[in-house]
Amino acid sequence: MSTHARLAQQIRFIIEVDKLKEVFRQTLLTQSRRQENDAEHSWHLCLMVIVLAEHANSPEIDVLRVLKMLLIHDIVEIDAGDTFAYDTARMADQHEREALAADRIFGLLPADQTSEFRGLWDEFEAKETAEAKFATAIDRFQPVLQNCLTEGAAWRQHGVTSDRVIARNQHIADGAADVWTYAAQMIADAVKAGHLPA
Amino acid sequence: MSTHARLAQQIRFIIEVDKLKEVFRQTLLTQSRRQENDAEHSWHLCLMVIVLAEHANSPEIDVLRVLKMLLIHDIVEIDAGDTFAYDTARMADQHEREALAADRIFGLLPADQTSEFRGLWDEFEAKETAEAKFATAIDRFQPVLQNCLTEGAAWRQHGVTSDRVIARNQHIADGAADVWTYAAQMIADAVKAGHLPA
Ligand SMILES: [Ca+2]
Repeated sequence: MSTHARLAQQIRFIIEVDKLKEVFRQTLLTQSRRQENDAEHSWHLCLMVIVLAEHANSPEIDVLRVLKMLLIHDIVEIDAGDTFAYDTARMADQHEREALAADRIFGLLPADQTSEFRGLWDEFEAKETAEAKFATAIDRFQPVLQNCLTEGAAWRQHGVTSDRVIARNQHIADGAADVWTYAAQMIADAVKAGHLPA
Repeated sequence: MSTHARLAQQIRFIIEVDKLKEVFRQTLLTQSRRQENDAEHSWHLCLMVIVLAEHANSPEIDVLRVLKMLLIHDIVEIDAGDTFAYDTARMADQHEREALAADRIFGLLPADQTSEFRGLWDEFEAKETAEAKFATAIDRFQPVLQNCLTEGAAWRQHGVTSDRVIARNQHIADGAADVWTYAAQMIADAVKAGHLPA
């Protein structure tokens, strides 16, 4: 394949993923209180990684690989939509819907990059490597932070209780124990403030 | 400083930069045609870097460093606002406004990270290293792409002509010659289609 043809194929993928800016999540922004979209969420996670990498449980973490995973982790939601973290009905077939989306969207890339990106996404989903555990910790911590800063808006709207928030987010400790200690305190403070039902 | 105090300081920075999601640019999204914000723009650039890194003029480029630069390059616009690439009046004092913002916002971090992030931002602004040249090439190419995909909306709204678009964007070639070849063709096509005045 010529350089020009390869570049043209890569740009088709780059154009397709512009759609991630229009996939909205349940969490709100701290200023305007509008819903956050997946693209800006992904940016925020990457920024958190370069600030917080020292808090990963594994000191030898490959930060570039964590960033690659987080840059692409939500792209499947262009087809599959965002699944709210506490929506157990939609979570049942979430992986299946997202795997189909991964086939289609990463399949737009040249074959070597289709494999690379699918490999990164599978690694993120499996949550087994140190990089995937840290990426997941950051992906869970960010909505806790946004919720705590917006008086628990998304939690209250969906009737989520603190035991469920703790059950889901205690896995932050698998990737970054200090971050979970911090998050657990924020959750406790949200309960005290009446922003999260006990 | 204790781990907890350091983490708390880092999180104050992470909370502050949520505001980047509310700094809007002149370029439009391909689907809804609303204005793009700096956070989703920054995500798109980082994704482009991991897809297009092979097209950098320097084969030995440090991709992690390019990503760090692009993750933080627009944070100064929280205070300084977005400066449209063809607004010469506002561009006159742009660097000064942005440097003050860099002092304040990167100054929220622990001192070692204030230096690191300020160093990355200064490197990006100076456009001298291979990494800064590639980061700049991607930062310029992305709005060209968005404009070409939205019938030149931002160019036409501001009366920008093709000679100015070429003068500004030909520097893409300093970081990624193949990408500039591609972009120059897109610009020529936009002129032919009547989306960009000659
Ligand atoms: Ca998700």
